[in-house]
Amino acid sequence: MEKIKRTERIAALSRILMSRPNEVMSFSVFSERFSAAKSTLSEDMAIIDHALRENGLGQLQTIPGAAGGVRFRPLIVKNEAYNFLTWVSALLSEPGRILPGGYLYLSDILGNPAIVRGMSEIIASSWYDEKPDFILTMETKGIPVAMMTADFMNIPLVIARRQSRVYEGSAVNINYPSGKGSIETMSLSRRAVKDGQRALIVDDLIRGGGTARGLLSLMEEFSVEVVGLSFVLSQDTPPRKPIEKEKSLMFFSGDGENEPLQVRPAEWITLSS
Amino acid sequence: MEKIKRTERIAALSRILMSRPNEVMSFSVFSERFSAAKSTLSEDMAIIDHALRENGLGQLQTIPGAAGGVRFRPLIVKNEAYNFLTWVSALLSEPGRILPGGYLYLSDILGNPAIVRGMSEIIASSWYDEKPDFILTMETKGIPVAMMTADFMNIPLVIARRQSRVYEGSAVNINYPSGKGSIETMSLSRRAVKDGQRALIVDDLIRGGGTARGLLSLMEEFSVEVVGLSFVLSQDTPPRKPIEKEKSLMFFSGDGENEPLQVRPAEWITLSS
Repeated sequence: MEKIKRTERIAALSRILMSRPNEVMSFSVFSERFSAAKSTLSEDMAIIDHALRENGLGQLQTIPGAAGGVRFRPLIVKNEAYNFLTWVSALLSEPGRILPGGYLYLSDILGNPAIVRGMSEIIASSWYDEKPDFILTMETKGIPVAMMTADFMNIPLVIARRQSRVYEGSAVNINYPSGKGSIETMSLSRRAVKDGQRALIVDDLIRGGGTARGLLSLMEEFSVEVVGLSFVLSQDTPPRKPIEKEKSLMFFSGDGENEPLQVRPAEWITLSS
Repeated sequence: MEKIKRTERIAALSRILMSRPNEVMSFSVFSERFSAAKSTLSEDMAIIDHALRENGLGQLQTIPGAAGGVRFRPLIVKNEAYNFLTWVSALLSEPGRILPGGYLYLSDILGNPAIVRGMSEIIASSWYDEKPDFILTMETKGIPVAMMTADFMNIPLVIARRQSRVYEGSAVNINYPSGKGSIETMSLSRRAVKDGQRALIVDDLIRGGGTARGLLSLMEEFSVEVVGLSFVLSQDTPPRKPIEKEKSLMFFSGDGENEPLQVRPAEWITLSS
C-alpha cells in the first residue's frame, strides 16, 4: 500500500496496538503494512509512548530480540485509580442497593461496561508482572470483569461451573464448604487448563472465602499455581483469615440493617504506582 | 496543561476515543484537556477518521448539536469479517472438539479474548443502527461475547439466570420448554431492565431455539422490544423455524458421529458492508 503521513500512521498504529493490549507485535508486520522503515516506526512508537505516559493513558513497551516487538499496556495512575474506585464505592453505598437479608445488589455495576473496563484495567495492571497464563473465575457474576481482565492481559478466561455440564467434556469436580454452612460443588473441564500453568483468580465478591478456597483446591488438582486473586468487593466484617496474594479492589462493612453499609477502595490502590 | 504536538495529540486522542467505543465525547472536554482550539481538534479528528477508514480499522462519527461531539465505532470490512469467521469455523470444525453425544466443546473459543473481541466487533457493528439500550444473555457460556459486545456498543449487559438468586432481589421467573423436552426456568431481576427499553439478545448457541424463545417471552413480561438476536453458532440441521431479526455468526451441521461436523460463516456476513 501507499505510504501515508506520520499523523495518519500514528492514528492507525494506536488503534492496532490498543485494540490488543499486552500482545507483542513485530515491527516487520507494521513495516510491511505501512511501507515504512523500522527506524521510522521506532520514532512513531516513541511519540505514541510519550503521549500516552504524559497523559496517564498507558505505555508502549519495546521487547528486544528475535521474538521482540512492541506492546501496549494500560498504565494505572494511582490517584486516578483511587478516584475511580471512590466513585464506584459511592455507587455501591447507595441505600437502595440493600436487599432483604443484607445482600447487595451488584448486577448493574457488574454489567456496566465503563465500570467493568475501569476495574479490569486496574486488576490487569496490578498483575502483569506475575505473568499468569489464564484468568479463572467461578460462574456467574464475576464473568464480565474476569473477561475484560483477560482481554487486557491477552490470556484466556476459564470458567469453573457449579455442576459438570455435558458440553464441557470430562471434568474434575470438588466439593467445598460455603459460607452458609452448606456444601457446594465446583466443576472444571479437564481440557480447560494444563499442568504447570499459572492462574490469576478474578471474581466479584469474597465474604467468608469459601469459594476462593474452593478455587485454590481446584487449581491444586490441576497442578496449577495461583499467582494472585482479585475480587471486586471484599467483606471486612466479620474479619476473615486473609488469603495470600489477594488484591481486592474495594472493601465493605455493615449490612445496611444493623450497621450502615460502607464501601471504600482497598489500601493497596493508593500505594500502587 | 502545556500544548502538545499534533502527532502526540493524535496518539492520545486515539487512545481515549478507542477505549470507549460508541461513546459521544464532546470537543469542549478535549479542547480543555489539550489546550487546543476546536478547529484544530476537528482537523485531528479528520486525520484519525481517514487513517482508520483507509486501513479498515474503524471510523469516527461527528454528532452535531449541543449534545454533540465525536465517537469511535469499529467498522467491519466484509471480507475481513468473512476471513476471520472462516478461520474460527475451521477451529470449531476440529474433530477433537466433539464430545460424547455430539456436543461441541466451545469453552476455549468462548474464553479466548482475541476471538471473542473479533466476534463481538462484528455483532456490535451489525446492530448499532437499531440502537439497543442493553444486551441480554442467558448464563453462562454466552456472557464473555455478550459483555464485549456491550463494551463495543457502550450499553449495559443484563444476564438472565437459571434460577432466582437472593442477591438479585425480586425477580420475574418464566418456564420454557427446552430442546430436550424438559421444562427449564429463567429468572431476571425486576431492577435489571425498564419498561419500553430495547434489547439485543447475544448468546453462544442456538439449536432448537427454546432458550431464545424463552428470552423473547421474558422480554415481553418486561414490555421490552427485542431489536435483534445474534448467536455465535446456529445449528442448521434439523432445520428450525427461523427467528425474526436473527443474525448469527456461524452455522453448523452434523454431529461428528453420523455426519461430519461442518461449520461455516453465515451468509449475511459476506453481504454486509
